Amino acid sequence: MGAPKEGILSEEPLYDPKILQRLDFSKAPTKFSPPVSAARPGDGLRVRPLCRADYNRGFLQLLSQLTSVGEVSEEQFLKRFDAMQACPNTYYVTVIEDTTNGQVIGSSTLVVEQKFIHGCAVRGRLEDVVVNNTYRGKQLGKLIIMTVTLLAEELNCYKMTLDCKDKLVPFYSSLGYTLEQGNSNYMMIRFDKAPS
Amino acid sequence: MGAPKEGILSEEPLYDPKILQRLDFSKAPTKFSPPVSAARPGDGLRVRPLCRADYNRGFLQLLSQLTSVGEVSEEQFLKRFDAMQACPNTYYVTVIEDTTNGQVIGSSTLVVEQKFIHGCAVRGRLEDVVVNNTYRGKQLGKLIIMTVTLLAEELNCYKMTLDCKDKLVPFYSSLGYTLEQGNSNYMMIRFDKAPS
Repeated sequence: MGAPKEGILSEEPLYDPKILQRLDFSKAPTKFSPPVSAARPGDGLRVRPLCRADYNRGFLQLLSQLTSVGEVSEEQFLKRFDAMQACPNTYYVTVIEDTTNGQVIGSSTLVVEQKFIHGCAVRGRLEDVVVNNTYRGKQLGKLIIMTVTLLAEELNCYKMTLDCKDKLVPFYSSLGYTLEQGNSNYMMIRFDKAPS
Repeated sequence: MGAPKEGILSEEPLYDPKILQRLDFSKAPTKFSPPVSAARPGDGLRVRPLCRADYNRGFLQLLSQLTSVGEVSEEQFLKRFDAMQACPNTYYVTVIEDTTNGQVIGSSTLVVEQKFIHGCAVRGRLEDVVVNNTYRGKQLGKLIIMTVTLLAEELNCYKMTLDCKDKLVPFYSSLGYTLEQGNSNYMMIRFDKAPS
Protein backbone atom coordinates (compact mmCIF):
# COMPACT_ATOMS: atom_id res chain seq x y z
CA MET A 1 0.00 0.00 0.00
CA GLY A 2 3.03 2.29 0.22
CA ALA A 3 3.61 2.76 -3.49
CA PRO A 4 0.77 5.15 -4.37
CA LYS A 5 1.58 7.30 -1.36
CA GLU A 6 5.22 7.44 -2.38
CA GLY A 7 4.12 8.29 -5.90
CA ILE A 8 2.14 11.28 -4.65
CA LEU A 9 4.97 12.36 -2.39
CA SER A 10 7.50 12.19 -5.17
CA GLU A 11 5.49 14.56 -7.38
CA GLU A 12 4.63 16.94 -4.55
CA PRO A 13 5.89 20.40 -5.57
CA LEU A 14 8.38 22.25 -3.35
CA TYR A 15 5.98 25.21 -3.32
CA ASP A 16 2.47 25.98 -4.54
CA PRO A 17 2.62 25.89 -8.37
CA LYS A 18 -0.47 28.09 -8.74
CA ILE A 19 1.58 31.18 -8.08
CA LEU A 20 3.53 30.57 -11.28
CA GLN A 21 0.33 30.67 -13.32
CA ARG A 22 -0.49 34.20 -12.29
CA LEU A 23 2.87 35.84 -12.94
CA ASP A 24 2.39 38.74 -15.34
CA PHE A 25 5.13 38.56 -17.94
CA SER A 26 3.93 41.79 -19.56
CA LYS A 27 5.55 43.49 -16.52
CA ALA A 28 8.90 41.82 -17.17
CA PRO A 29 11.71 44.32 -17.82
CA THR A 30 12.68 42.33 -20.92
CA LYS A 31 10.81 41.28 -24.04
CA PHE A 32 10.33 37.72 -25.23
CA SER A 33 10.04 36.91 -28.91
CA PRO A 34 7.92 34.90 -29.41
CA PRO A 35 6.08 35.89 -26.22
CA VAL A 36 6.29 33.23 -23.52
CA SER A 37 5.53 33.05 -19.82
CA ALA A 38 5.79 30.60 -16.95
CA ALA A 39 2.18 29.60 -17.66
CA ARG A 40 2.82 29.27 -21.43
CA PRO A 41 6.49 28.51 -21.92
CA GLY A 42 6.05 27.01 -25.39
CA ASP A 43 5.23 23.61 -26.90
CA GLY A 44 6.70 20.67 -25.07
CA LEU A 45 7.86 22.74 -22.11
CA ARG A 46 6.59 23.17 -18.59
CA VAL A 47 7.73 25.57 -15.85
CA ARG A 48 7.06 24.28 -12.36
CA PRO A 49 8.46 23.93 -8.85
CA LEU A 50 11.07 21.25 -8.19
CA CYS A 51 9.71 17.95 -6.90
CA ARG A 52 11.35 14.89 -5.37
CA ALA A 53 10.99 12.82 -8.55
CA ASP A 54 13.29 15.27 -10.33
CA TYR A 55 16.19 13.36 -8.84
CA ASN A 56 15.48 10.83 -11.61
CA ARG A 57 14.85 13.45 -14.27
CA GLY A 58 18.37 14.78 -14.57
CA PHE A 59 18.10 17.70 -12.12
CA LEU A 60 21.53 17.17 -10.56
CA GLN A 61 23.15 16.39 -13.90
CA LEU A 62 21.78 19.73 -15.10
CA LEU A 63 23.26 21.54 -12.08
CA SER A 64 26.61 19.94 -12.84
CA GLN A 65 26.68 22.01 -16.03
CA LEU A 66 26.77 25.05 -13.71
CA THR A 67 29.24 23.98 -11.04
CA SER A 68 30.49 20.97 -9.11
CA VAL A 69 27.70 18.89 -7.63
CA GLY A 70 29.61 15.81 -6.54
CA GLU A 71 28.11 12.47 -5.71
CA VAL A 72 24.67 13.13 -4.25
CA SER A 73 22.67 10.04 -3.37
CA GLU A 74 18.90 9.99 -3.68
CA GLU A 75 18.74 9.92 0.11
CA GLN A 76 20.86 13.07 0.37
CA PHE A 77 18.79 14.78 -2.29
CA LEU A 78 15.53 13.96 -0.53
CA LYS A 79 16.92 15.09 2.79
CA ARG A 80 17.91 18.44 1.30
CA PHE A 81 14.52 18.77 -0.42
CA ASP A 82 12.80 18.12 2.91
CA ALA A 83 15.04 20.61 4.70
CA MET A 84 14.14 23.29 2.15
CA GLN A 85 10.47 22.45 2.45
CA ALA A 86 10.76 22.71 6.25
CA CYS A 87 11.59 26.43 5.88
CA PRO A 88 8.27 28.13 5.15
CA ASN A 89 8.19 30.68 2.30
CA THR A 90 11.93 30.47 1.66
CA TYR A 91 13.05 28.16 -1.14
CA TYR A 92 11.54 28.44 -4.62
CA VAL A 93 13.59 26.07 -6.74
CA THR A 94 11.96 26.30 -10.18
CA VAL A 95 12.57 24.09 -13.18
CA ILE A 96 11.79 23.83 -16.87
CA GLU A 97 10.80 20.34 -17.94
CA ASP A 98 10.94 19.07 -21.49
CA THR A 99 7.64 17.21 -21.46
CA THR A 100 8.57 15.27 -24.58
CA ASN A 101 11.25 13.33 -22.73
CA GLY A 102 10.46 14.09 -19.08
CA GLN A 103 13.84 15.67 -18.41
CA VAL A 104 14.61 18.78 -16.35
CA ILE A 105 16.42 21.10 -18.76
CA GLY A 106 16.51 24.39 -16.88
CA SER A 107 16.49 25.61 -13.31
CA SER A 108 16.84 28.68 -11.15
CA THR A 109 16.14 29.37 -7.52
CA LEU A 110 14.57 32.25 -5.66
CA VAL A 111 15.61 32.32 -2.02
CA VAL A 112 13.51 34.67 0.11
CA GLU A 113 15.15 36.24 3.13
CA GLN A 114 13.18 37.72 6.01
CA LYS A 115 14.32 40.98 7.52
CA PHE A 116 13.49 43.27 10.42
CA ILE A 117 14.50 46.36 8.42
CA HIS A 118 12.10 48.19 6.09
CA GLY A 119 9.08 47.29 8.22
CA CYS A 120 9.96 43.59 8.49
CA ALA A 121 10.39 43.28 4.74
CA VAL A 122 11.45 40.33 2.61
CA ARG A 123 14.05 40.33 -0.15
CA GLY A 124 14.77 37.85 -2.89
CA ARG A 125 17.97 36.29 -4.20
CA LEU A 126 18.53 34.71 -7.58
CA GLU A 127 20.62 31.56 -7.30
CA ASP A 128 21.86 28.62 -9.34
CA VAL A 129 20.67 29.51 -12.82
CA VAL A 130 21.32 26.87 -15.46
CA VAL A 131 19.92 25.76 -18.81
CA ASN A 132 20.95 22.51 -20.46
CA ASN A 133 23.56 23.44 -23.03
CA THR A 134 21.80 21.54 -25.81
CA TYR A 135 18.75 23.81 -25.31
CA ARG A 136 20.58 27.13 -25.50
CA GLY A 137 19.39 29.93 -27.80
CA LYS A 138 15.71 29.34 -27.06
CA GLN A 139 15.38 32.19 -24.51
CA LEU A 140 15.01 29.57 -21.77
CA GLY A 141 17.59 31.30 -19.57
CA LYS A 142 15.61 34.53 -19.79
CA LEU A 143 12.42 32.59 -19.13
CA ILE A 144 13.58 30.83 -15.99
CA ILE A 145 15.28 33.96 -14.58
CA MET A 146 12.27 36.17 -15.29
CA THR A 147 10.01 33.55 -13.74
CA VAL A 148 11.73 33.67 -10.36
CA THR A 149 12.23 37.44 -10.63
CA LEU A 150 8.50 38.04 -11.11
CA LEU A 151 7.88 35.47 -8.41
CA ALA A 152 9.97 37.56 -6.00
CA GLU A 153 7.85 40.61 -6.81
CA GLU A 154 4.66 38.59 -6.43
CA LEU A 155 5.86 37.50 -2.98
CA ASN A 156 6.33 41.17 -2.02
CA CYS A 157 10.10 41.22 -2.01
CA TYR A 158 11.33 44.81 -2.06
CA LYS A 159 14.30 43.82 -4.19
CA MET A 160 15.80 40.89 -6.03
CA THR A 161 19.57 40.57 -6.11
CA LEU A 162 22.22 38.33 -7.59
CA ASP A 163 25.95 37.98 -7.68
CA CYS A 164 27.73 37.06 -10.87
CA LYS A 165 30.93 36.92 -12.84
CA ASP A 166 31.99 39.82 -15.08
CA LYS A 167 31.07 38.01 -18.27
CA LEU A 168 27.42 37.70 -17.20
CA VAL A 169 26.90 41.39 -16.37
CA PRO A 170 25.69 42.32 -19.89
CA PHE A 171 23.23 39.42 -19.90
CA TYR A 172 21.71 40.30 -16.53
CA SER A 173 21.67 43.97 -17.51
CA SER A 174 19.53 43.03 -20.51
CA LEU A 175 17.06 41.47 -18.06
CA GLY A 176 16.71 44.63 -15.99
CA TYR A 177 19.32 43.97 -13.31
CA THR A 178 21.64 46.87 -12.54
CA LEU A 179 25.02 47.44 -10.97
CA GLU A 180 23.94 50.16 -8.58
CA GLN A 181 26.43 53.03 -8.53
CA GLY A 182 28.69 52.73 -5.49
CA ASN A 183 26.81 49.70 -4.19
CA SER A 184 27.68 46.75 -6.38
CA ASN A 185 30.42 44.94 -4.49
CA TYR A 186 30.21 41.23 -3.78
CA MET A 187 32.85 39.98 -1.34
CA MET A 188 33.57 36.60 0.15
CA ILE A 189 35.60 34.39 2.41
CA ARG A 190 36.04 30.81 1.26
CA PHE A 191 36.54 28.37 4.10
CA ASP A 192 38.97 25.46 4.05
CA LYS A 193 36.23 22.99 3.29
CA ALA A 194 35.31 25.04 0.24
CA PRO A 195 34.58 23.09 -2.93
CA SER A 196 35.90 24.72 -6.08
CA MET B 1 -0.09 32.16 35.57
CA GLY B 2 0.91 33.45 32.15
CA ALA B 3 3.60 35.88 33.20
CA PRO B 4 6.47 33.50 34.06
CA LYS B 5 5.89 31.56 30.85
CA GLU B 6 5.94 34.75 28.83
CA GLY B 7 9.07 35.78 30.68
CA ILE B 8 10.86 32.59 29.64
CA LEU B 9 9.60 32.94 26.08
CA SER B 10 10.78 36.50 25.82
CA GLU B 11 14.36 35.55 26.75
CA GLU B 12 14.43 32.43 24.57
CA PRO B 13 17.35 32.82 22.14
CA LEU B 14 16.73 32.68 18.37
CA TYR B 15 19.36 29.92 18.17
CA ASP B 16 21.45 27.85 20.56
CA PRO B 17 23.87 30.27 22.28
CA LYS B 18 26.34 27.49 23.15
CA ILE B 19 27.72 27.57 19.64
CA LEU B 20 28.99 31.12 20.22
CA GLN B 21 31.04 29.97 23.19
CA ARG B 22 33.10 27.57 21.14
CA LEU B 23 34.03 29.88 18.26
CA ASP B 24 37.81 29.98 17.94
CA PHE B 25 38.82 33.60 17.46
CA SER B 26 42.47 32.62 17.05
CA LYS B 27 41.39 31.42 13.58
CA ALA B 28 39.90 34.79 12.66
CA PRO B 29 41.59 36.40 9.63
CA THR B 30 41.97 39.63 11.61
CA LYS B 31 43.63 40.48 14.90
CA PHE B 32 41.93 42.03 17.91
CA SER B 33 43.80 44.30 20.28
CA PRO B 34 43.09 43.74 23.09
CA PRO B 35 42.12 40.14 22.26
CA VAL B 36 38.37 39.57 22.47
CA SER B 37 35.97 36.84 21.37
CA ALA B 38 32.26 36.15 21.34
CA ALA B 39 32.73 34.28 24.62
CA ARG B 40 34.83 37.10 26.15
CA PRO B 41 33.84 40.33 24.44
CA GLY B 42 35.09 42.58 27.23
CA ASP B 43 33.78 44.04 30.49
CA GLY B 44 30.13 44.99 30.44
CA LEU B 45 29.48 43.37 27.09
CA ARG B 46 27.74 40.19 26.02
CA VAL B 47 27.48 38.57 22.59
CA ARG B 48 24.37 36.44 22.19
CA PRO B 49 21.55 35.46 19.85
CA LEU B 50 18.63 37.86 19.45
CA CYS B 51 15.65 37.20 21.73
CA ARG B 52 12.10 38.50 21.78
CA ALA B 53 12.74 40.83 24.72
CA ASP B 54 15.22 42.75 22.57
CA TYR B 55 12.26 44.61 21.12
CA ASN B 56 12.37 46.60 24.36
CA ARG B 57 16.15 46.86 24.45
CA GLY B 58 16.59 49.15 21.47
CA PHE B 59 17.17 46.53 18.78
CA LEU B 60 15.07 48.24 16.13
CA GLN B 61 16.34 51.70 17.07
CA LEU B 62 19.83 50.29 16.53
CA LEU B 63 18.88 48.96 13.09
CA SER B 64 17.53 52.38 12.20
CA GLN B 65 21.12 53.65 12.39
CA LEU B 66 21.79 51.32 9.45
CA THR B 67 18.76 51.89 7.23
CA SER B 68 15.05 52.64 7.33
CA VAL B 69 13.14 50.40 9.71
CA GLY B 70 9.79 52.18 9.81
CA GLU B 71 7.11 51.69 12.41
CA VAL B 72 7.37 48.09 13.57
CA SER B 73 4.93 47.14 16.33
CA GLU B 74 5.87 44.60 18.97
CA GLU B 75 3.36 42.24 17.37
CA GLN B 76 5.06 42.57 13.97
CA PHE B 77 8.48 42.09 15.54
CA LEU B 78 7.39 38.94 17.36
CA LYS B 79 5.74 37.59 14.22
CA ARG B 80 8.98 38.07 12.28
CA PHE B 81 11.03 36.54 15.10
CA ASP B 82 8.73 33.51 15.08
CA ALA B 83 8.92 33.24 11.28
CA MET B 84 12.72 33.21 11.46
CA GLN B 85 12.65 30.64 14.22
CA ALA B 86 10.31 28.49 12.12
CA CYS B 87 13.09 28.07 9.52
CA PRO B 88 15.49 25.52 11.01
CA ASN B 89 19.21 26.33 10.84
CA THR B 90 18.72 29.50 8.81
CA TYR B 91 18.63 32.77 10.76
CA TYR B 92 21.43 33.66 13.17
CA VAL B 93 20.67 37.22 14.25
CA THR B 94 23.41 38.01 16.75
CA VAL B 95 23.65 40.99 19.07
CA ILE B 96 26.04 42.71 21.43
CA GLU B 97 24.40 43.81 24.67
CA ASP B 98 25.76 46.46 26.97
CA THR B 99 25.05 44.67 30.24
CA THR B 100 25.50 47.87 32.23
CA ASN B 101 22.32 49.37 30.77
CA GLY B 102 20.66 46.34 29.15
CA GLN B 103 20.68 47.87 25.69
CA VAL B 104 21.44 46.15 22.38
CA ILE B 105 24.33 48.13 20.90
CA GLY B 106 25.48 45.97 18.00
CA SER B 107 24.04 43.41 15.64
CA SER B 108 24.78 41.35 12.58
CA THR B 109 23.06 38.44 10.95
CA LEU B 110 24.26 35.22 9.40
CA VAL B 111 21.72 33.76 7.00
CA VAL B 112 22.46 30.18 6.00
CA GLU B 113 21.30 29.03 2.57
CA GLN B 114 20.90 25.38 1.67
CA LYS B 115 22.06 24.22 -1.74
CA PHE B 116 21.99 21.12 -3.91
CA ILE B 117 25.33 22.02 -5.50
CA HIS B 118 28.67 21.07 -3.95
CA GLY B 119 27.25 17.90 -2.42
CA CYS B 120 24.19 19.59 -0.89
CA ALA B 121 26.34 22.25 0.74
CA VAL B 122 25.36 25.29 2.78
CA ARG B 123 26.65 28.82 2.37
CA GLY B 124 26.48 31.83 4.63
CA ARG B 125 25.56 35.46 4.07
CA LEU B 126 26.50 38.42 6.22
CA GLU B 127 23.59 40.84 6.62
CA ASP B 128 22.54 43.95 8.50
CA VAL B 129 25.71 44.86 10.35
CA VAL B 130 25.39 47.80 12.71
CA VAL B 131 27.04 49.15 15.85
CA ASN B 132 25.54 51.99 17.89
CA ASN B 133 27.37 55.11 16.80
CA THR B 134 28.16 56.11 20.37
CA TYR B 135 30.12 52.85 20.77
CA ARG B 136 32.29 53.19 17.67
CA GLY B 137 36.05 52.76 17.84
CA LYS B 138 35.90 49.84 20.27
CA GLN B 139 36.38 47.11 17.61
CA LEU B 140 32.75 46.06 18.15
CA GLY B 141 32.04 46.06 14.40
CA LYS B 142 34.95 43.68 13.88
CA LEU B 143 33.76 41.60 16.82
CA ILE B 144 30.19 41.16 15.65
CA ILE B 145 31.19 40.51 12.03
CA MET B 146 33.88 38.01 12.99
CA THR B 147 31.43 36.29 15.34
CA VAL B 148 28.95 35.48 12.57
CA THR B 149 31.77 34.75 10.11
CA LEU B 150 33.29 32.13 12.42
CA LEU B 151 29.76 30.91 13.11
CA ALA B 152 29.29 30.30 9.38
CA GLU B 153 32.47 28.23 9.32
CA GLU B 154 31.39 26.35 12.45
CA LEU B 155 28.10 25.53 10.73
CA ASN B 156 30.05 24.07 7.79
CA CYS B 157 29.33 26.79 5.28
CA TYR B 158 31.71 26.51 2.34
CA LYS B 159 31.78 30.29 1.97
CA MET B 160 30.52 33.45 3.60
CA THR B 161 29.58 36.35 1.35
CA LEU B 162 28.38 39.91 1.65
CA ASP B 163 27.40 42.79 -0.57
CA CYS B 164 28.48 46.31 0.31
CA LYS B 165 29.02 49.87 -0.79
CA ASP B 166 32.36 51.01 -2.20
CA LYS B 167 33.34 52.86 0.96
CA LEU B 168 33.16 49.66 3.03
CA VAL B 169 35.39 47.55 0.79
CA PRO B 170 38.62 48.47 2.65
CA PHE B 171 37.02 47.65 6.01
CA TYR B 172 35.77 44.23 4.91
CA SER B 173 39.09 43.57 3.18
CA SER B 174 40.80 44.12 6.53
CA LEU B 175 38.55 41.38 7.95
CA GLY B 176 39.57 38.82 5.35
CA TYR B 177 36.81 39.32 2.79
CA THR B 178 37.95 39.60 -0.82
CA LEU B 179 36.64 40.94 -4.09
CA GLU B 180 37.29 37.81 -6.12
CA GLN B 181 38.82 38.62 -9.48
CA GLY B 182 36.16 38.57 -12.19
CA ASN B 183 33.48 37.42 -9.74
CA SER B 184 32.59 40.35 -7.53
CA ASN B 185 29.46 41.81 -9.12
CA TYR B 186 26.37 42.47 -7.07
CA MET B 187 23.32 43.34 -9.19
CA MET B 188 19.72 44.11 -8.31
CA ILE B 189 16.22 44.98 -9.38
CA ARG B 190 14.29 47.17 -6.97
CA PHE B 191 10.55 46.65 -7.16
CA ASP B 192 7.96 49.42 -6.98
CA LYS B 193 7.24 48.68 -3.36
CA ALA B 194 10.92 49.15 -2.59
CA PRO B 195 11.68 51.18 0.52
CA SER B 196 14.58 53.57 0.15
